[in-house]
Amino acid sequence: MAGMTETPHPLYDRHAETLTRALTAITERGYWSAYPESPSPRVYGETAAADGRAAFEAYLNGDFPLDQAGDGQTVATEVSPFGVELNVRYPHATVDQLVAAATAALPAWRDAGPQARVGVCLEILDRLHKNVFELANAVQFTSGQAFVMAFQAGGAHALDRALEAIAYAYAEMTRHPGTAGWEKPAGKGDPLRMSKTFHVVPRGVALVIGCNTFPTWNSYPGLFASLATGNPVVVKPHPRAVLPLAITVKYARQVLAEAGFDPNLVQLAPEAADEKLASTLALHPAVKIVDFTGSSEYGDWLEANARQAAVYTEKAGLNTVVIDSTDDFAGMCRNLGFTLALYSGQMCTTSQNLLIPRGGIETDQGHKSFDEVAAGIAAAVGKLTADPARGVEFTGAIVNDGVLERLEEVAKVGEVVLESRTVEHPTFPAAVVRTPTIVKLDATDTATYSREWFGPISFAIATNSTAHSLEILRSTVGEKGALTAGVYATDESVLDAAETAAIEVGVHLSCNLTGGVFVNQSAAFSDFHGSGANAAANSALTDGAYVANRFRIVQSRRHV
Amino acid sequence: MAGMTETPHPLYDRHAETLTRALTAITERGYWSAYPESPSPRVYGETAAADGRAAFEAYLNGDFPLDQAGDGQTVATEVSPFGVELNVRYPHATVDQLVAAATAALPAWRDAGPQARVGVCLEILDRLHKNVFELANAVQFTSGQAFVMAFQAGGAHALDRALEAIAYAYAEMTRHPGTAGWEKPAGKGDPLRMSKTFHVVPRGVALVIGCNTFPTWNSYPGLFASLATGNPVVVKPHPRAVLPLAITVKYARQVLAEAGFDPNLVQLAPEAADEKLASTLALHPAVKIVDFTGSSEYGDWLEANARQAAVYTEKAGLNTVVIDSTDDFAGMCRNLGFTLALYSGQMCTTSQNLLIPRGGIETDQGHKSFDEVAAGIAAAVGKLTADPARGVEFTGAIVNDGVLERLEEVAKVGEVVLESRTVEHPTFPAAVVRTPTIVKLDATDTATYSREWFGPISFAIATNSTAHSLEILRSTVGEKGALTAGVYATDESVLDAAETAAIEVGVHLSCNLTGGVFVNQSAAFSDFHGSGANAAANSALTDGAYVANRFRIVQSRRHV
Repeated sequence: MAGMTETPHPLYDRHAETLTRALTAITERGYWSAYPESPSPRVYGETAAADGRAAFEAYLNGDFPLDQAGDGQTVATEVSPFGVELNVRYPHATVDQLVAAATAALPAWRDAGPQARVGVCLEILDRLHKNVFELANAVQFTSGQAFVMAFQAGGAHALDRALEAIAYAYAEMTRHPGTAGWEKPAGKGDPLRMSKTFHVVPRGVALVIGCNTFPTWNSYPGLFASLATGNPVVVKPHPRAVLPLAITVKYARQVLAEAGFDPNLVQLAPEAADEKLASTLALHPAVKIVDFTGSSEYGDWLEANARQAAVYTEKAGLNTVVIDSTDDFAGMCRNLGFTLALYSGQMCTTSQNLLIPRGGIETDQGHKSFDEVAAGIAAAVGKLTADPARGVEFTGAIVNDGVLERLEEVAKVGEVVLESRTVEHPTFPAAVVRTPTIVKLDATDTATYSREWFGPISFAIATNSTAHSLEILRSTVGEKGALTAGVYATDESVLDAAETAAIEVGVHLSCNLTGGVFVNQSAAFSDFHGSGANAAANSALTDGAYVANRFRIVQSRRHV
Repeated sequence: MAGMTETPHPLYDRHAETLTRALTAITERGYWSAYPESPSPRVYGETAAADGRAAFEAYLNGDFPLDQAGDGQTVATEVSPFGVELNVRYPHATVDQLVAAATAALPAWRDAGPQARVGVCLEILDRLHKNVFELANAVQFTSGQAFVMAFQAGGAHALDRALEAIAYAYAEMTRHPGTAGWEKPAGKGDPLRMSKTFHVVPRGVALVIGCNTFPTWNSYPGLFASLATGNPVVVKPHPRAVLPLAITVKYARQVLAEAGFDPNLVQLAPEAADEKLASTLALHPAVKIVDFTGSSEYGDWLEANARQAAVYTEKAGLNTVVIDSTDDFAGMCRNLGFTLALYSGQMCTTSQNLLIPRGGIETDQGHKSFDEVAAGIAAAVGKLTADPARGVEFTGAIVNDGVLERLEEVAKVGEVVLESRTVEHPTFPAAVVRTPTIVKLDATDTATYSREWFGPISFAIATNSTAHSLEILRSTVGEKGALTAGVYATDESVLDAAETAAIEVGVHLSCNLTGGVFVNQSAAFSDFHGSGANAAANSALTDGAYVANRFRIVQSRRHV
């Protein structure tokens, strides 16, 4: 009977221990990681870095090897923020080709059952991990992230998030048994006896729309949550960050084919210029799941228009830090400075609005005026970025011209506390590198700070008091959403008030970060990324709600 | 810290055993029930039935006692299918009053935490169960169900479904801990240590829109799933079935107040004629969850328009039975006859389209022609309804004039195999009672059978073959959806083919039902009601997906 029996799958057996550990991790939400984040040769071997770099370079100026049906066209749309010529040509397919191939692949994948699917997914992660340096190079040169960050966020951490999504998917698919007996007492007569079969049935074709800045990290949870729950996945990369997902699709197809499944369960959908491929795919009646990371405008459009699908979005917001007081002024400045400098603030989690009482704050170094607080943070950023060779390893490169335009625009909206500088990259002379800027605003400048200025742009905003800061947090994040919020305060009652405000506007809160944890970073298996409780995202990566509606249970029953 | 601590709640302790048993039941999906379905005095005591009847009658021709803020108006909109004058006057409130009161009640309920909320919800079920005869009378005289059915479906089974929803909600809210330690190794240095708090945060005000036929059974899962997860609930009953939900709200408010919570966590929203209250409430920005049972037209409207809310709908469909062969012809006819007669087919799960090969079928009684199969089922219905006194205990009364109009209309669309009869109710002379009709159609009469004819109306449809029947199942259910499907076949390969078709169109399948289980009935804790995988419903009552998105997790973290 279709989907009824499930024989142990060798790939499931191979990865059962990893899965078990991941299943524990998602219930404990403590620290755990399956994929080492250090690119050190001691961890990955002496030749791994060079091999990965060579594998990456072998793709450049050539046709990307993908055994996928297409229309014969190729597309090459990538422009590296590091100024490196990529010119990788990807085979193009039509929407009809993609949907037809995905649809044809669905039944056997559905009928293989949760264990086989999860086994294959875990093998794909394993394959990607074996090629993580190749992946990291692709992320670096398309996103503009510095190498170590690309290795971590784009490689190890992305794989952790994928594993987390697979674990949730497995838990959700197996929370009910595949079959159950039902025996209802019937007074003095024989009981009524039924046997019931519960099929895990995928929704249909799943679409993943990737972004430019985090092509893997932001795509993997949706990709693997959909795939593990039985849905064929069409991966539509950002035109400027195709390679990391092309590599992902290549290895996924390799594993699928080796395991005897249709490789078209994972397809790449690179788009030609102005093709609007994402929109066409998202509205296709066969597409039943859409995962998207990117602008609020497009995310809102998808939610409003892709009505035939379950749509999971991560959009823009107003990440905010409330600064009330601190017992470690230097640590606070260092910590915030790192957050602002990392990847030139081009993270959906980077703090934009720093709310500081205009009368200043109390610290372990005595009272600090508003200007001293702003200057302290600016100095921390300055220190990280002063030396170009060291600085570019934090900032990476600027992902696109939109960021540069905003940097020009923002210099005119208020007093510049920290000027953005152009830095020449010591290794890649054509790289576009800019250091962060901090601009002073007043609480009354609502129109300026209540929009997102994506990039290395933050505002030091003078408020009347911490209570006023919390009011601004409530109103701005309440309206526009946010992925992160922070608070610095020595008084528990202030931390409590901040936490209540964060709960009310549904934003995750980091309190008094002064060490090696940063408000813009979330740890897989422990931190939730996004809450789904405000306008910045309609879901979290990853939790039960993120996976539970990617499949449905269809049951059958009969007398025993 | 808001929502951080959770002290054991006495009501949680009181019902912990029931909850534990329910949590086991939802993972096993075997037989279990918490609320006895037999209204026998041996179960409920000698006076329970009379007391419940008296309590019900005390509401008639009076002001319903509800301590809720309102606008001073009262509404009385109910018309009993049994012809009994109800004339219960309910206090009316404006949308603003309802939303304001619900919003004010939210924070303390949110901060009480999962255990306290679930304890209170279970105490509400207990209170309703103590008054289940009162509830059953209210369901009977508003829906038109016969008493025993009203007691079971409207009382005991509705409470079981509520408990099931609460169990899923509890499991989902507690699958992550409230707090977690996080300790990340940092080479030779001290590990990074954080403590994290995970708050369960409700989405906002929840709206439950009740239906006329199953005012409690279809409303309870959403009501209690929303309430348990922290959302204040506004209950908007169908204008013709207010009393069962008014009683529900009354006891819920009683329990909430006794437990020290704001009774406005559960409010009744009875509507005045032509007020369009459901629509106004559903579009209110504060309303973040909508549960609805009713017409496809309105359900689709809600899904398309209540965009600020998570919308859970159960709508109409084309419930279908494929008849291929049987080794128990008499049992098959009896079983289907019961399904068609029960509550005059006014269930969202009643079979409408009976697909029978025009060449007839093989049975234990030899070959039966198409007409003999149709006649066999018709005879079974006839037998159940022949005696008016006995018949009305199956059929109950007709819920509204729309059903009567369809009965007139359907007599003209094909050859009538079984005529609908008007029956005089022996106890309630003004009751509107009709027996089921069966009309013969051909597979080519697509326009007729591919719409829902809600009421005691079924079609015996002549198809070319069972393969053709399955094709029709695929196309009609694929397009319009269905909540139930059945198949009769002696050959495993036919059962397999039917199961594959059912999986593809996402409909639950009952195979070869010939005894005391019926295709139109689902058992709480075991059967899923609706699949969420076709057009008849976008969700199932109840599963993980039904509860997981009614709250969000908002976290905070700090250094240890």
